Amino acid sequence: MASPRPPGVTAASFAAALAAFRGALGAEHVLDGDAALEPYRDPYSFRWGDADEYRASAAVLPGTAEQVQAVVRIAGQYRLPVYPISTGRNLTYGGAAPSAPGSVIVDLKRMNRILAVDAGRNFALVEPGATYFDLYRHIQAKGLNLWLDVPDTGDGSLIGNALDRGVGYTTSGFRDHFGAHCGIEAVLPTGEILRTGMGALPGSDTWQDFRYGIGPCVDGLFSQGNFGIVTKMGFWLSPQPEAWMVGIVSVPDYTDLGPMIEQVNYLEDAGVMTGKPSYNSPPFHTFEGTFPSAPPKMHIDELMADGWPSLERIKFYARRHGGPAWRITLQFYGPEATVRASWDYVQARIGAALPRATFQSADPVALPLSPAQQRGRRLVDFGIPSNQAFEMTPAEAEAAELNAPVQGYVDFMAVVPRTAEAVHRAQRVLYETQKAMGAPITATPFNAPTCWFHRSFLMRAPTVAAFKGDPEARRKGRALYAAYAKAMAAEGFGLHRTSPAMQDLTAGLYGFNDHALLGFQQRLKGTADPAGILAPGRYGVWPRQLRKGGV
Amino acid sequence: MASPRPPGVTAASFAAALAAFRGALGAEHVLDGDAALEPYRDPYSFRWGDADEYRASAAVLPGTAEQVQAVVRIAGQYRLPVYPISTGRNLTYGGAAPSAPGSVIVDLKRMNRILAVDAGRNFALVEPGATYFDLYRHIQAKGLNLWLDVPDTGDGSLIGNALDRGVGYTTSGFRDHFGAHCGIEAVLPTGEILRTGMGALPGSDTWQDFRYGIGPCVDGLFSQGNFGIVTKMGFWLSPQPEAWMVGIVSVPDYTDLGPMIEQVNYLEDAGVMTGKPSYNSPPFHTFEGTFPSAPPKMHIDELMADGWPSLERIKFYARRHGGPAWRITLQFYGPEATVRASWDYVQARIGAALPRATFQSADPVALPLSPAQQRGRRLVDFGIPSNQAFEMTPAEAEAAELNAPVQGYVDFMAVVPRTAEAVHRAQRVLYETQKAMGAPITATPFNAPTCWFHRSFLMRAPTVAAFKGDPEARRKGRALYAAYAKAMAAEGFGLHRTSPAMQDLTAGLYGFNDHALLGFQQRLKGTADPAGILAPGRYGVWPRQLRKGGV
Repeated sequence: MASPRPPGVTAASFAAALAAFRGALGAEHVLDGDAALEPYRDPYSFRWGDADEYRASAAVLPGTAEQVQAVVRIAGQYRLPVYPISTGRNLTYGGAAPSAPGSVIVDLKRMNRILAVDAGRNFALVEPGATYFDLYRHIQAKGLNLWLDVPDTGDGSLIGNALDRGVGYTTSGFRDHFGAHCGIEAVLPTGEILRTGMGALPGSDTWQDFRYGIGPCVDGLFSQGNFGIVTKMGFWLSPQPEAWMVGIVSVPDYTDLGPMIEQVNYLEDAGVMTGKPSYNSPPFHTFEGTFPSAPPKMHIDELMADGWPSLERIKFYARRHGGPAWRITLQFYGPEATVRASWDYVQARIGAALPRATFQSADPVALPLSPAQQRGRRLVDFGIPSNQAFEMTPAEAEAAELNAPVQGYVDFMAVVPRTAEAVHRAQRVLYETQKAMGAPITATPFNAPTCWFHRSFLMRAPTVAAFKGDPEARRKGRALYAAYAKAMAAEGFGLHRTSPAMQDLTAGLYGFNDHALLGFQQRLKGTADPAGILAPGRYGVWPRQLRKGGV
Repeated sequence: MASPRPPGVTAASFAAALAAFRGALGAEHVLDGDAALEPYRDPYSFRWGDADEYRASAAVLPGTAEQVQAVVRIAGQYRLPVYPISTGRNLTYGGAAPSAPGSVIVDLKRMNRILAVDAGRNFALVEPGATYFDLYRHIQAKGLNLWLDVPDTGDGSLIGNALDRGVGYTTSGFRDHFGAHCGIEAVLPTGEILRTGMGALPGSDTWQDFRYGIGPCVDGLFSQGNFGIVTKMGFWLSPQPEAWMVGIVSVPDYTDLGPMIEQVNYLEDAGVMTGKPSYNSPPFHTFEGTFPSAPPKMHIDELMADGWPSLERIKFYARRHGGPAWRITLQFYGPEATVRASWDYVQARIGAALPRATFQSADPVALPLSPAQQRGRRLVDFGIPSNQAFEMTPAEAEAAELNAPVQGYVDFMAVVPRTAEAVHRAQRVLYETQKAMGAPITATPFNAPTCWFHRSFLMRAPTVAAFKGDPEARRKGRALYAAYAKAMAAEGFGLHRTSPAMQDLTAGLYGFNDHALLGFQQRLKGTADPAGILAPGRYGVWPRQLRKGGV
């Protein structure tokens, strides 16, 4: 399928627009034609190669905020939808592909400057093309006492990840990347540049020190939004912790999960444990909510043979395994003596509440890790950017319990409260959905929650599909994902992030009071972007002229 | 001066509107006339009794969100400005008074339910009339293992304080009250109810567990804003810490401030110190940026006799005092062994960087404090709501280094980076402004920063004025405040919060790129509130029909 023209735009008008882009940016920074646009397809798309795959009509690569303004103004003049990407590595959430057909990709990778890094005030100010690798190398080269919280894509953009509300793996105050931002510069759809927070004060000296400025705070509109193209963004950074310590708590009984969750919630919310907890179910090798890897498959088939098992049956299989029913990994960052004291406290506290709990730990490890210590580890757990998760073969990735992207792969993930009751309810809903849809059964009473966000769980189910070569697999994957989303929503569990193919569906489920929130977002969008050109449809927010009935 | 009618509304129309309010709410919940409206004046107003004092035309007291909808719809019909207050205790920032003349106050104090408190997931969901006292008593009565971060007004509203972006005094993750919110229900100016975040999912089970939901986040628009009347709001709470420990670091030399700030920034940003630091200058008894209390006044006059003193002169006066030049109080919350280990680490770390630093501390104190331990303390430092700061005589308040509200009192406070260079620059600007304005000189090279926010300093200067009885004092106070704001803005330092009398001035200073941010806020406001009825002018955001030139 060839790259399309923007809808409703004549060939002559589109040619004139491309000429205008070339005049503003230089011909070498305007791409069109199938070959040049191939990188702007989403390799994980549920729609790969289908008629409704959203393909770009062109790509432009501005080098400055002024060139972004020029791009937006030309787009407004010719009524072209434009879709900004930072580095296009938003993998499993759309990649470099647009949210509406025929969009012109605004690829910001040339704007990759690191504008400021302050190791006394502990912040960075960067452009959208700056990657985690770029900032990490800058910090290393300058020998600054700072570290990063990084996602799985080391060559991803700090700004892109934060704006899509992505997460990392280290300390609680920094894993929520949008939550750790401080200050935005954006080009509005009308071409105007604004700065938020203290950046609105000309010559501001505290743009990355105080996030609100004065008056209503607009920053949130730019996250998972289409209210502007962010050209600069600040981030709060953590100083390098001196040591990292891991402690593992194992509890024997299946029903110990509830009291353990209460203990972990306390430790996390009181700031005693500064790292991310991980829940693991040894009987079924499930880890952080991933589906079990190959070996225990037989046990699952046994466990689930007669449908959702009774508590007695669950306990029988947990006991037959011979080990603990649940294992929780706790992480502590800080001075060595402090993390040791915290771990001693944790053992005493949990030991009093769950007398049969057992504890394992190793000595604290001084940070940063030496190159030798880095071998064989998930580097992202230590603030070191990496593409490990995306560089494995499917078999390697499965063995390492990581996502295998080679032929397309999407996890379904929903936000669930931090209680055992909710975890079990979510497991059951995922199971019933798999059964109803004829999908492989991977949801069991042993699926564990994922703890990326520090105040909620995510419950996860795989919707693997060989997207690139198999239309039927795509159709099934899409249907399964939609079925999960609807069934979980009926239980009060919603998604926090999704790919463009699922954004209308997802936003539609957030329907309280006749979709009042979406209606409000769309009215504001109409004002911010009267021509409706910027990332139309992103997260379900369409401009009036492209709205498909409903809200 | 009598209470006015809303501008442009006839007596007959206003009477009809009041009758409509009475029909919707019951006559006893609609107030008019000077005596009934006296509580809706701001006792701290720079405009008290002046022609431009913003007085209410009436007050309505809805009891439910549905009644708030009715109020907003009637206001829209009759084109009445309405100004929502939660409990009206926004002292020094406008109190219960409106942001535009003739507004109808929407007093939400009857809506004071505590809708949910969860001690396992550690959150609360409340209505706007619920006070810190209310929630504290609820937690005590139920024996929940939770504590609060409270501001100086114990009878203030959690929602009101958070929406005005107020702060408290305990741990770093909770002092920013808007930052600790999770989920909003608001009545829009059009009368529609929406819920943000996960609350937009019907029957959501995670409204207070995950803050973003899906799509662009609109929550910030309701803070320091006029985009809706918030009728429910969730807050993340901390579990009760087990112990509190205070450690004091003293450094001998005036120029030790810079290295000390770097040390404290590290401890705070790395999460080693979980409480609020306080900077204190023993030679001049300045504490957290307050002006010096009476005894050392003579020294100030000496120090400042020949204008801004040279570094040599500053050092001479610091030495003459005989003690340390700076004293920094650090606070640690957590398990006893952890806070002890952290304090040991802090002494070793700072001792290595500043070998002449000296350290004092007392044993950790178990929390909660016993009633006997509460005596003589600032209760708000221990998560216990109180009105202590507002119940003292001016002399008592001065002795206790607290604000003295009896005759009107406003602090000027600007956001400043966490460096000694910035602190000294801000001191100098405040001093030069005082000199230029003929105001008493309270700004000296020893004024210390205030650390309410965990990533920035506030630099503070008093603009005391006997507001109630003295028009000339009001005029002078207002002029001094404005002069501070302009002079600090010229250095890149902006305000974070201000009273309605100063909101146009302040918002006007945030003028980057021809007031692009304010223009954006006002365009969005026009869409959210086409009739321009809700809190017009709040933080400088006016609806088109009331805009006074400029943006």
